[in-house]
Amino acid sequence: MTQPTIGFIGLGIMGKPMAKNLLKAGFPLVVLNRSRGPVDELVALGATAGTSPRDVASRSEIVITMLPDSPDVESVVLGTDGVAQGIKSGSFWIDMSTIAPATTRAIAAELAKKGVTSLDAPVSGGEKGAIDGALSIMIGGPQEAFDRAQPVFQAMGKNIVRIGETGAGQVAKACNQIVVGVTIEAVAEAFALARASGVDPAAVRTALLGGFAQSKILDVHGQRMLDHNFQPGFKSKLHRKDMNIATSSAEERGIEIPAAGLVKDRFDALIARGEGELDHSALAALYEKTAAAAK
Amino acid sequence: MTQPTIGFIGLGIMGKPMAKNLLKAGFPLVVLNRSRGPVDELVALGATAGTSPRDVASRSEIVITMLPDSPDVESVVLGTDGVAQGIKSGSFWIDMSTIAPATTRAIAAELAKKGVTSLDAPVSGGEKGAIDGALSIMIGGPQEAFDRAQPVFQAMGKNIVRIGETGAGQVAKACNQIVVGVTIEAVAEAFALARASGVDPAAVRTALLGGFAQSKILDVHGQRMLDHNFQPGFKSKLHRKDMNIATSSAEERGIEIPAAGLVKDRFDALIARGEGELDHSALAALYEKTAAAAK
Repeated sequence: MTQPTIGFIGLGIMGKPMAKNLLKAGFPLVVLNRSRGPVDELVALGATAGTSPRDVASRSEIVITMLPDSPDVESVVLGTDGVAQGIKSGSFWIDMSTIAPATTRAIAAELAKKGVTSLDAPVSGGEKGAIDGALSIMIGGPQEAFDRAQPVFQAMGKNIVRIGETGAGQVAKACNQIVVGVTIEAVAEAFALARASGVDPAAVRTALLGGFAQSKILDVHGQRMLDHNFQPGFKSKLHRKDMNIATSSAEERGIEIPAAGLVKDRFDALIARGEGELDHSALAALYEKTAAAAK
Repeated sequence: MTQPTIGFIGLGIMGKPMAKNLLKAGFPLVVLNRSRGPVDELVALGATAGTSPRDVASRSEIVITMLPDSPDVESVVLGTDGVAQGIKSGSFWIDMSTIAPATTRAIAAELAKKGVTSLDAPVSGGEKGAIDGALSIMIGGPQEAFDRAQPVFQAMGKNIVRIGETGAGQVAKACNQIVVGVTIEAVAEAFALARASGVDPAAVRTALLGGFAQSKILDVHGQRMLDHNFQPGFKSKLHRKDMNIATSSAEERGIEIPAAGLVKDRFDALIARGEGELDHSALAALYEKTAAAAK
């Protein structure tokens, strides 16, 4: 059985290793990226270079986008020479970017008019997960499309869950970013209290990992905080963007999510200090300065 | 070798099973409790009933207190007919209650004048951990005392960590309660956003457990929220008390811990609704009502 051709748009920190894993799994690939370097790298591995989103879409049965933000996805799909202008009826559009659920639904509605099925499939697991083909993938869209796209997802991820209908994947990702962001803040505050009380935060981390306070964040990001290792990882400015998606979505739905709002503000404070490029665990750095100032 | 006699004061939800595990481990036990029922239960298993904290202390080499709050511990140890009036020089006082680190340090200083060594050893793991002898125990106090008390701790817990000097166990417990409380809030907000967006929070929980958002809280308390099972467990009014210890300690040290403060306020809101007896995962119930009202 021939593998369907996949068009892959957006070869950034995440997109590039994801595209490589699709190549490894045997999918013919047409790739596109704003800068040329990653395209050449993929072409050397057997991919074909596209010339525009429209061109990529016209040569593929499945179009994957992996882009920074809602406006990027909107313009690449619906803009001039966009995916929508080239994509064939019966194709799939799989958006693996993290964007606003409302934007996902709007674009999917446009593409449905052209006989295109949309799946929103944002990921979690970072660059390492992307390289290892071990991403968590949260998927919204029709069950049948989810089933048919399984081999594509399995080439890139491990924990592949269909959450619900179109947009549900993005909602789950927003939930993920709330939990991750607020838990980072929780650990940062706990370590700040320990340090200010003259207690070793490393001993606190060890003790807490054995009980109800256990989390992957306490383990991995807690260790980053102890090491003061804020090399990304996942950049604070991107997490800030995701917290904004979460709080805006909550506002649209008429509910309040105050801890998420607080963490969004903490990211703003970090970015205002010029530290938006640091890993999101750098929320703890805000407290190190506070604690030092208090001495 | 003869086991030292342990005086155990406070046979509540946690204290009673902890005392039973000490009996099982072969320690002679003198017990005291405000209500008679648990005392009779322990006496039937081989313990001796004491008549006052002073009496218990005068008949023991180690005095353990497991009481609700800082004022309770202060009055039982330093009050009329208190532990301090009966305790022998060379004895240990082990406080396994969760109280303010400042109170711990003040009482330990008083007892030191009588030649008594203090260990603060608050626990985590809930009633189930107490019954199973599987508590996490966070300990502050001299290394030598920690080493000598090992058999006592091992009869009640599994993850036994010395955090630092006197008070450090209570600081670690405050950190634990910050992380647990704020993570519960994080999961509650994520589920609220999912529900308000028409997405199944159960699917969100499953997806998130496979990635960076993983935590014991998302697993255990997340399931409680889905089941609307708010039978304690750990009562909201007690967690509220612990959040107050955390924020007061932070204030004393001149630092801010805003997410912890926010969660303290959420517990206040729950208590104001008359739901302080519910499990701390009932923070999610505040959002269920909000979400329903928004529809």
